Amino acid sequence: MEQALAARRRRSDAERNVAALLDAAKTVFAEDGVDAPAKRITDLAGVGVGTLYRHFPVRSDLIVAVLQHEIDACVAAATTLAAEHAPWEALTLWMDQFVGFVGTKNGLSEALHSGDPAYAGLPGRLLDRLEPALDRLLGAARAAGDLAVAIDARSLLLAVARLCQPVRADEPDANGRLARIFVNGLRRP
Amino acid sequence: MEQALAARRRRSDAERNVAALLDAAKTVFAEDGVDAPAKRITDLAGVGVGTLYRHFPVRSDLIVAVLQHEIDACVAAATTLAAEHAPWEALTLWMDQFVGFVGTKNGLSEALHSGDPAYAGLPGRLLDRLEPALDRLLGAARAAGDLAVAIDARSLLLAVARLCQPVRADEPDANGRLARIFVNGLRRP
Repeated sequence: MEQALAARRRRSDAERNVAALLDAAKTVFAEDGVDAPAKRITDLAGVGVGTLYRHFPVRSDLIVAVLQHEIDACVAAATTLAAEHAPWEALTLWMDQFVGFVGTKNGLSEALHSGDPAYAGLPGRLLDRLEPALDRLLGAARAAGDLAVAIDARSLLLAVARLCQPVRADEPDANGRLARIFVNGLRRP
Repeated sequence: MEQALAARRRRSDAERNVAALLDAAKTVFAEDGVDAPAKRITDLAGVGVGTLYRHFPVRSDLIVAVLQHEIDACVAAATTLAAEHAPWEALTLWMDQFVGFVGTKNGLSEALHSGDPAYAGLPGRLLDRLEPALDRLLGAARAAGDLAVAIDARSLLLAVARLCQPVRADEPDANGRLARIFVNGLRRP
């Protein structure tokens, strides 16, 4: 009984550490690039360097995990937003979150295009996970009569991703603005 | 007097030949790439190979001229469309023509990114010529109360250009469709 409790506590410590590392890595990558020193990440996460390497032995493990962590959040958000908002509002709020993910991904593009086999096919697999999440939101908006134009989830994800440029400090919402114009163009007046 | 008439006729023959060569080159480049044999282009234009080389000594001259010819047409169309249509209609019709230009440009991207100094800065210079043309159309739409979102001509050109993918034979209007969604997103309901 006490052993089981201790094991569960260790597990939840590990989950907390991983979540802190992924949040810290996302921030540090955006500020200093993907080759930033490990210590910057672990200092920000409040864990030891040993913890980082135990969970993410090589840098590509950490980069892939950062992206998958954001995808997990996008997929979960689709469910939460659909439950809490009207279909059109849920769709537009979700696209804001997707634009945030694209910003992270674009910030990592040097690594993703480095030819390292750790990233082979990764952007496509990430989109594969988002497609059903967006498809549900689009379906609800269509059922509510909100859509003036037929578009499939994949085409919408790709179009918004192509609109997004590297995030600029002087205009941090530029991508969100373009994405909202595009999504607004789908709406029945 | 007769000399002047003959000179004018020669000039207009030359202009006709150049126009025929540029139209033919655009078609042949789209079908067979920018390294297509000169004879394919001259056969389609109905002129001799000597005429091609007199006007366009090297291939890059012809490629640059094809793009500038489409830009000239876009700039002229802005005036014609503004005269003949309501502001919103003129804007959307003009964007269709711009999407056609982007398709041509994307078809030539291998050459444009070849590092040949003949193309240095060319895409930016082409956009520079389009910007005032679109700015007039946007200004008219704004004055008519058609715009729900403020956007400058340059940002609109770049956003639509980024939406455009290589033209696919099975879905030739895919780029136009995405561009119309984006432009529609600017419209006051």
